[in-house]
Amino acid sequence: MDLPAPRPDLPLLKPRLEQRLLAVLPADAVVQDGHELRAYECDALSAYRCPPLLAVLPRSTAEVSAVLRICHEEGVPVVPRGAGTSLAGGALPTADSVVLGVARMNRVLEVSLPDRFIRVEAGRTNLSVTTAVEADGFFYAPDPSSQLACLIAGNIAMNSGGAHCLKYGVTTNNLLGVTMVLMDGSVVEIGGPWMDAPGLDLLGLVCGSEGQLGVVTEAVLRILPKPEGALPVLIGFNSSEVAGACVSDIIKAGVLPVAVEFMDGPCIKACEAFAHAGYPDCEALLIIEVEGAEAEIRHQLGLITEIARRHDPVELREAADADQARRIWLGRKSAFGAMGQIADYMCLDGTLPVSSLPQVLRRIGALSVEYGLDVANVFHAGDGNLHPLILYDANKPGDQEKCEAFGAEILKLCVEAGGCLTGEHGVGVEKRDLMEVQYGPADLEAQLRVKDVFDPGWLLNPAKVFPLHVTAGRRAG
Amino acid sequence: MDLPAPRPDLPLLKPRLEQRLLAVLPADAVVQDGHELRAYECDALSAYRCPPLLAVLPRSTAEVSAVLRICHEEGVPVVPRGAGTSLAGGALPTADSVVLGVARMNRVLEVSLPDRFIRVEAGRTNLSVTTAVEADGFFYAPDPSSQLACLIAGNIAMNSGGAHCLKYGVTTNNLLGVTMVLMDGSVVEIGGPWMDAPGLDLLGLVCGSEGQLGVVTEAVLRILPKPEGALPVLIGFNSSEVAGACVSDIIKAGVLPVAVEFMDGPCIKACEAFAHAGYPDCEALLIIEVEGAEAEIRHQLGLITEIARRHDPVELREAADADQARRIWLGRKSAFGAMGQIADYMCLDGTLPVSSLPQVLRRIGALSVEYGLDVANVFHAGDGNLHPLILYDANKPGDQEKCEAFGAEILKLCVEAGGCLTGEHGVGVEKRDLMEVQYGPADLEAQLRVKDVFDPGWLLNPAKVFPLHVTAGRRAG
Repeated sequence: MDLPAPRPDLPLLKPRLEQRLLAVLPADAVVQDGHELRAYECDALSAYRCPPLLAVLPRSTAEVSAVLRICHEEGVPVVPRGAGTSLAGGALPTADSVVLGVARMNRVLEVSLPDRFIRVEAGRTNLSVTTAVEADGFFYAPDPSSQLACLIAGNIAMNSGGAHCLKYGVTTNNLLGVTMVLMDGSVVEIGGPWMDAPGLDLLGLVCGSEGQLGVVTEAVLRILPKPEGALPVLIGFNSSEVAGACVSDIIKAGVLPVAVEFMDGPCIKACEAFAHAGYPDCEALLIIEVEGAEAEIRHQLGLITEIARRHDPVELREAADADQARRIWLGRKSAFGAMGQIADYMCLDGTLPVSSLPQVLRRIGALSVEYGLDVANVFHAGDGNLHPLILYDANKPGDQEKCEAFGAEILKLCVEAGGCLTGEHGVGVEKRDLMEVQYGPADLEAQLRVKDVFDPGWLLNPAKVFPLHVTAGRRAG
Repeated sequence: MDLPAPRPDLPLLKPRLEQRLLAVLPADAVVQDGHELRAYECDALSAYRCPPLLAVLPRSTAEVSAVLRICHEEGVPVVPRGAGTSLAGGALPTADSVVLGVARMNRVLEVSLPDRFIRVEAGRTNLSVTTAVEADGFFYAPDPSSQLACLIAGNIAMNSGGAHCLKYGVTTNNLLGVTMVLMDGSVVEIGGPWMDAPGLDLLGLVCGSEGQLGVVTEAVLRILPKPEGALPVLIGFNSSEVAGACVSDIIKAGVLPVAVEFMDGPCIKACEAFAHAGYPDCEALLIIEVEGAEAEIRHQLGLITEIARRHDPVELREAADADQARRIWLGRKSAFGAMGQIADYMCLDGTLPVSSLPQVLRRIGALSVEYGLDVANVFHAGDGNLHPLILYDANKPGDQEKCEAFGAEILKLCVEAGGCLTGEHGVGVEKRDLMEVQYGPADLEAQLRVKDVFDPGWLLNPAKVFPLHVTAGRRAG
C-alpha cells in the first residue's frame, strides 16, 4: 500500500500546530502523545497502520470549524474519523495529518414524529438513533453490522447499508439534511427536514463522499414507523445456482422481503461451528425475513415457501416465534466472528446483478483454487451486495499481498458482471486503485473537479478514494 | 419576468446553425419555421413565452451528442425539454437558445425483474414505464399528476414526486443510473443498476439539476412489486387545525399511508362543483390511502378511522370497493381542471413541516384578503408538500404581477416555517429570484461552482434556477 511521502517540516510543524489547536480546544480534546495516538493509527482495515501527527476530539460545530480553519491555514491534511469501523480504510491517517474524531458530538437535538425526522449530532451511534425514538414506535432504517459502534458521521461518509436495505435503502435514502464544515472552516447547511431542496442536490453528493468534501457535524435523519413484527425463514439448497434462481423467482413474483441473506458452503460450516445455530450442512443457505402485521407476514411467508419448494430445498424452516427467529439469525450475525476464529480474513464488498450471482460465485471458486486461499461468501442477495471473506495468514510472508490480489480480481469480476466496486463499505484506501476499473479518465476527472469545488487545496482525507497517481497534481503531499 | 438580452449576431447565427445541425440530424429533426417554433415557446407555466432560435428532436444519444457539440462550438445556449409540462418554467426558451426535445427517444431498452430495474430512453412517458412492467406485477413509483404526458427526462430534471411519494419517495429515491451528454458532447454513464456507486455520488447531483448539468438520454429506474390492493378513506373536518392534528396523530401513531391528501374549503367547493364527487361541504378534507394485502388494508384503515374519530370528523367515508375508491379520488384528481374553469390560476409548490400547516394556512388566508386574490389549497399532507392555487384574471392589468407577489410571500412563509421553496416542481424561472430567501451567498456559490464543473461556459439552461444577477458573470448572454 503506497502512501504519500510526508512533508519535510513535520518536526517543526507539530508543536506549532498543537499550540494553535490548544488555543481553540480544551486540553483534553487534543491528543499529541505518541502512545495515545496509536488508538488512531488504523480503523477496521487493520492491515494498514500509520499514526497521525495529532488527533482532535471537538465537542461542537464551532470547535470543528476552528480546527479546520487552523489546519487550512497550516496546509495540514485532515482525516475525519467516526468510530473507526471502516472496513475500507476510510479513516486511515497519513503521518502528516490531523485525525478529527467526532465521537464526542453525540446528542439528540430534535425529534419530530409528525414530520418523521430526528436531528442528531453526527457522532451519535447508529443504533442509539433508533433507541431515541423506539419508545414512540419508530426506528432509523440503515443497520450496518457494526451498528452498535459505528457513527452516523461514518454512515454518511460511506453511504452505509445493512441487511435490511433491500426494503429501506441505504443511508442516502434516509438522510434529509446535514450541517457540514468545509475545510476553510465555513459552516454550511445542506438539505433539511423535507424531501427535496431547490437548486442542486448537494446532499446526495455529500452522502458517500468519504469525508472528502467537508466534516459533517449534524444530520437530519428520516425515521420510520416500526413494523408490528418480523419473522425469518431459513432455506437450504445443495447448489448456489438453485439458491440464486430461488431468490430471482421470489423477487420476480413481486415479493419484497425486508432482507434476503445468502451464505455459501464454507460460510455455513464456519458459522455453524462457531455459533451452533443448527444450520444444515449444504451448499447454500438463504435467510429471508418479512415484516408487517401478523396476517401480512403469514401471507408473504406463504408465497416465499411455495416458491422455495419448487426448487427442492434440503431444508425449509419457518420461525414460529421470536426465539426461533433469533436462532435463525444467530449464525449469520456471527459470520465475521466465526471467520476471525479460523484465520485472518479480508472482507470485500462488491455489488452485482442478482442474476449473475451463480456464475460469479463459480468464478470466485476457481480463483480460490488458483490463489490457494479459501473464501467464504456471505451476501445481501436481495440487492446484489456480495461480501466475500478471503482467509489468509497475516504472519505468512506474501500471504496478504496474495489476498489483496485475489480480492482485486473478485471486484473486477463484479464490475465485469455489470456491478460495481462497493455496496456499502466505500472505497477508502482499499479499493482506491480499482477506481480505474470502474471509471474512465473523464468520469474520474468530473469527480475530482467536484472535490476541487469544496476543498480546492485537497486537504480533506486527500489520499483516499482515487488512485494516488490520478490526484498527485492536486494533493500537496 | 426579466430574461437575458439576446446576442446581437442572431440573424447571422440562425442560418449557419441550422445548416450545421442539418448535417448531423435528419431534416424532420430540425424545427426552424417560425410558426412551428411556437410549439416550443412555453411550457405549462404559460404566462411566460419566448420562441427559441431553433428546436431539435434527436432520436439517439449520438444525435444529442452531435447537437450539443455544435451548440458548444457556436456558444449557443441549449434548453432541454421533456413533454413541456413544467409548472416552474423549466423548459422556457430564451430567444438565442436551441430547444432540445427528447420526446422521440422513448424506447424500453432492458427489463430485469430479478434485479428490479428497467432501462429506458429518457423521452419515455412516466406512466408508460409502469405499463411496460405491470403485466409482470411491477410498477414505477413516482406519479406526478401529469404522468400520462410527462417524460422521465423531465422527472429527473425536476426530481418529480406525486401523490404516493409519502411512501415511495421522489424520483431521486427511484433512480439508479443515467446516460448523460455533457455540453461539450461527451457522453457519461453515472450510476447503474445497483444501490450505491463508488466515489462521489454524481447521480444524486444530476437528479433535480433542472437540465443544467447535462442532457439525460437514458435512465435505469427502480421498479417495485405492485401492492395487491389499495383503498382510500375520506375524512372531513370543520377546521384545518383539526385536520392537521389528525394527520400528525396518524403519522405519530406509526401508520404510514401511501398517500395523505389535504384540500381546504375553497378547493373542496370548486372540485365538488366541477366533478360532483359527493364531497361534504366542510373546511378541510383528507383523502388517506393505504395499500397491501386485504388484511393489511383493513388493519391500517381501522387504525386511521379510530384516530380520525377522536377528532370529531363531519364525514368519514371508507371505500368499500374500487368504484367507491374511484369516486373518492375523482374530486382530488380534477382539482386543477376545476380551478381552470373558475379562473386563471398559478400553482405554487412549497414544502413545510406538517406541524406548521395550520398556522401557515391561516397566514395564507390573511394574505389572500390583503392581496384581494382567492386561493385554494391542495396539499400532499403526509410529506408537507403544499400546492396553493392562486386565482387571478390574466386579462386584468396588474393582476398577474399581484399574483406573483402573493405567491412569493407564500413561499417565503414556507421557508420561514422551516420548509423550502419547492417540493416537486423545481425552481425553473418561477422561483429563481427566491433562491436568495432559501440560501446565503456561500451556499449559492457552492452550487454555481458545481455547475461550472459540468458546464463551464454556462450554456445549458443557463437562465434558470439562480437569480440572473448572481449568474451574470458566468452566463454569456
